[in-house]
Amino acid sequence: MNRSNFVPFQSVTFNDGFWKDRYELNKNVSLPNVRLRFEESGRFDALRFNFLKNGREPHIFFDSDVAKWIEAVAYLYEKDAKAMAPHVALCDELIDCMERAQRDDGYLNSAHQQITPHLIFRDRDRHELYCAGHLIEAAIAYHKATGKDQLLRVMEKYCALIERVFLKERSAAFTTPGHEEIELALYKLYRYTGKEQYRNMAEYFLSERGTLERSPGTETRENYNKYSAQDDVDIYHLKEANGHSVRALYFYSGIADMALENGDRTLYENLKKVFEDITQRKMYITGGVGSTRVYEGFTVPYDLPNHTAYTESCAAIAMMYFASRMRRIEKKAVYGELMERVLYNAALSSTSLDGKAFFYENPLEISLPEYNREVAAKESRRERLPITQRLEVFHCSCCPPNINRFFAELGSYIALEEDGGICLEQYISSDIATHCGTLSVREEYATRGTAVISSSDYTARTLSLRIPAWSTGVTATLDGKTISIDVTDGYAVIPVEKVFTLSLDFSIAPTFVAADPRVRADAGRVALCYGPLVYCLEGIDNGAYLNELSISLDAVKTARLEKDFHGLLSITLPAHRDKESTTLYIPATNAERSPVNAKFIPYFAFANRQETDLLVWVRKA
Amino acid sequence: MNRSNFVPFQSVTFNDGFWKDRYELNKNVSLPNVRLRFEESGRFDALRFNFLKNGREPHIFFDSDVAKWIEAVAYLYEKDAKAMAPHVALCDELIDCMERAQRDDGYLNSAHQQITPHLIFRDRDRHELYCAGHLIEAAIAYHKATGKDQLLRVMEKYCALIERVFLKERSAAFTTPGHEEIELALYKLYRYTGKEQYRNMAEYFLSERGTLERSPGTETRENYNKYSAQDDVDIYHLKEANGHSVRALYFYSGIADMALENGDRTLYENLKKVFEDITQRKMYITGGVGSTRVYEGFTVPYDLPNHTAYTESCAAIAMMYFASRMRRIEKKAVYGELMERVLYNAALSSTSLDGKAFFYENPLEISLPEYNREVAAKESRRERLPITQRLEVFHCSCCPPNINRFFAELGSYIALEEDGGICLEQYISSDIATHCGTLSVREEYATRGTAVISSSDYTARTLSLRIPAWSTGVTATLDGKTISIDVTDGYAVIPVEKVFTLSLDFSIAPTFVAADPRVRADAGRVALCYGPLVYCLEGIDNGAYLNELSISLDAVKTARLEKDFHGLLSITLPAHRDKESTTLYIPATNAERSPVNAKFIPYFAFANRQETDLLVWVRKA
Repeated sequence: MNRSNFVPFQSVTFNDGFWKDRYELNKNVSLPNVRLRFEESGRFDALRFNFLKNGREPHIFFDSDVAKWIEAVAYLYEKDAKAMAPHVALCDELIDCMERAQRDDGYLNSAHQQITPHLIFRDRDRHELYCAGHLIEAAIAYHKATGKDQLLRVMEKYCALIERVFLKERSAAFTTPGHEEIELALYKLYRYTGKEQYRNMAEYFLSERGTLERSPGTETRENYNKYSAQDDVDIYHLKEANGHSVRALYFYSGIADMALENGDRTLYENLKKVFEDITQRKMYITGGVGSTRVYEGFTVPYDLPNHTAYTESCAAIAMMYFASRMRRIEKKAVYGELMERVLYNAALSSTSLDGKAFFYENPLEISLPEYNREVAAKESRRERLPITQRLEVFHCSCCPPNINRFFAELGSYIALEEDGGICLEQYISSDIATHCGTLSVREEYATRGTAVISSSDYTARTLSLRIPAWSTGVTATLDGKTISIDVTDGYAVIPVEKVFTLSLDFSIAPTFVAADPRVRADAGRVALCYGPLVYCLEGIDNGAYLNELSISLDAVKTARLEKDFHGLLSITLPAHRDKESTTLYIPATNAERSPVNAKFIPYFAFANRQETDLLVWVRKA
Repeated sequence: MNRSNFVPFQSVTFNDGFWKDRYELNKNVSLPNVRLRFEESGRFDALRFNFLKNGREPHIFFDSDVAKWIEAVAYLYEKDAKAMAPHVALCDELIDCMERAQRDDGYLNSAHQQITPHLIFRDRDRHELYCAGHLIEAAIAYHKATGKDQLLRVMEKYCALIERVFLKERSAAFTTPGHEEIELALYKLYRYTGKEQYRNMAEYFLSERGTLERSPGTETRENYNKYSAQDDVDIYHLKEANGHSVRALYFYSGIADMALENGDRTLYENLKKVFEDITQRKMYITGGVGSTRVYEGFTVPYDLPNHTAYTESCAAIAMMYFASRMRRIEKKAVYGELMERVLYNAALSSTSLDGKAFFYENPLEISLPEYNREVAAKESRRERLPITQRLEVFHCSCCPPNINRFFAELGSYIALEEDGGICLEQYISSDIATHCGTLSVREEYATRGTAVISSSDYTARTLSLRIPAWSTGVTATLDGKTISIDVTDGYAVIPVEKVFTLSLDFSIAPTFVAADPRVRADAGRVALCYGPLVYCLEGIDNGAYLNELSISLDAVKTARLEKDFHGLLSITLPAHRDKESTTLYIPATNAERSPVNAKFIPYFAFANRQETDLLVWVRKA
């Protein structure tokens, strides 16, 4: 088993273009805006242990919301201390409050301490260990970034309590948390501190899950279902993805950490089955997952309804966590392909182009006339469809600060140090400082399908490249000379010198993609893709009732690409629109259609101009 | 305004073929089977006012369930007293019990009297007047059939109480019932007895509805929505169909009765708008209505999801009530066309081919893998999809006895006495005794598209015929000589002699029908129709994942028609099936398909062999 490492974001500097803009937008707009909304909504006051100031009771997730935001500040601080200075001041204040509020025994949770002390370690679904996990991650990031150890000390003290209550005394009412997360945090803490007890704790929470018919602490839950929180099977018998998508993916990521640390091949083989179950049966083309809002999770194979897609932004991020860990274990292109799919689509769509607002759900189809279709039901009883517009904050606002921290460490997903050289997984314009020298990547990957990789101090003999699955042919020039590229299992290994310039052209072109026809929602339909990007139709460009449109496969031959709003590339294709009739049902031979142009925009950019219809999967003419 | 009358079922005798079989099946299997299930489930004991015998509390609908069954017995008794003898004995027993149980003030309701006397006339949604209405209809039918006036007396006494409480004292907590029905019953009672007060009462309940911002008796209902029970608008401002489909259609039928009795053109014009709203925007191709289970009703225009279709059997029957009343007011082919659509599809599908079991919902698509797709939710929280198999009885078993009484008076929907002659609306093999002589109809309408109409004593000069909209050309022979048929607004008026034989061939052929493309669920799809019948695909004939199939429009040219199970005509067409792939998403140009045969069966016959997938709207290749 492999144990490669991604080059950490600290060693990566975005130097140009699309992803640099996104990174800066997250730093300069998204993160400050989340701060404003969190201040308004009482999240910081809750962590100041002074929730009465604004009269809003702390929500059971508040600690995690703030922790993710602190973690984001820490990551951004490492690359731009000046910009983060005012935020670091707030972090310091909050950390002071937390330290003062921490109980003598180490316990720390703003909701339980202020509102529900009688429920401490009594209810697995009240997110105590989830909050603890995020605070641990924040503590590590903050210590690493600022050198300040206050929060780290607080959290290690809390961990000692958790270890005592859960592993030694076993006095908690439950064994495993309802929402996974602490497992990942504990592995991080183990790696950061080298202390074995954290690894043991992580292993404990992972190994206990699914070993009992009914998980302790759920006895009185009427709505308990063992699949929902991954209680259905233990880690040694795992083979399919089940339940709440974020919880599940954090669980699988934790198991991947365990496989990495222990070199346990069985765990990895099980995770491969899970990964395949997700990516070949339960994943939207955008890389989003979660086919139902009922439990925000995975359903049955090929059940991927578009207009009720749940596809939570946090689940997209969790897919990145899972896939990147799997990639560390084995050099397989499917992981990088998945990460590219998520990055350019499900993850990007989470944030508005102005950086201020966020999607919780990321639907793949919006048909506005059907919103509130159940006119004769009271609003609370109506079918809930995904939101059609991004919001700045949610009641359960897990996604926005998760997006903040995710883009803040985006650099950590680009390249690996592996086999004595570098393997480039994502083509993102950046300077990547590694043990074998600095690589410079300049790309117009998602617009022209090109990238130039160069170095002046590369010490390894080869450079490994993931060749995108969408590429229909790679043209490569090494130091001005055309070279042929051998692609084996999705990778090319190029012999290079110390100083080199490698130019790549992946032959990007608009392409229609079909889903396995077992996906009922996509049967007879195609999605327009352009390199890594999924495209979509919006009502604002194409009129209402987008399902009246149909497109023939050869329409891509006459595609017109144009710079559009926000500099995005739109793609216009010849299409047809079915004619509406005055009679509901007519002989099919009488049905008429007219030629129209269909204008597609990148999926991630939908819902940025006004509330309007959306369609990814277009009827094939 | 017209005021034509349908020839009543008493004057119609099914003489042969498909509909005679259906009529006999209802009489000999369905009705006795409903009796067994009602006895088992305590419905009769509730009406015996002895529910403790089986320990099951009477449901608030029980009186109406039993009333509909008694009404069916009465109708069938008129044509076959012998077969009904044992059922009449039970009816007599139940009527005795009801008479004994009736309160001195006239009140009669098995649930309220035995369980909830404190709620008498306090809660509009507890179906008191709905039950009363059905008992009135049963009383009329029973008196007409048997000459026994006991139940009629009981119900007239009850009506006197209702008149006093609702119209005179206005002491009830509500003005209009949550579920319409009594309006129709009161018009029937008015017509049967000639007593004006019943007409006044009907007018009162119709006219009061929708006149207040919030209907009395709903003040404390958290889930109240004025559209749900047609409280949104008064009868003089009606223009669209809203809310619970059965309630709405009973309401519109009641208004049509009022228009008929009062000759009120405004009411009729409003109803025409409603009729068009339903048939051109809110009706499935089967004639079924109800696009959501949340309130079992109409939603917004073009919202006709197939796999969550509610399309209650009772709503199909209610469509017949509404359309037949509209037809009495005006000779327009749309009414007869709608009745034909409902009869051959939504109404017929309600009952299993063996006559024993019934659908409550009648879905248009079943994809079995998606049933219980929400594996990680407790069963009670999972998405409820329509039932896939007919049942013999339901907890809320309104449909089975409604189906019993509907088929028992099927003869009442075939022909009208109009303009001094006969107008044949439906081609159903039967002998029709009228004021202008007896017509004999022999048809193979739904298999060969033919009918022969003859008489030996016809006294009118012309015979009016509704020419089906699906006919692409009529060949007619009158007494052996070919005649040409002039169709004006859907009708042909044929000059005939006293003795005549008219043979008609409507050129039946398999035809694909398309929906208005605003119907998202049907976009790019076609339904196979054959004359009046909608056809469908089942998994048992065509394998799972029916959405993998696609058909080109010219496939009908090579259709193969064959006698199949239960003697039904199946239609086999060349089609294609998309190939399943090992990868979830593939370039569309790599997608493959294989030629297959697609075997269609009549929609009404689906789910008669085993639980299996269903598809009406097939992808157009």
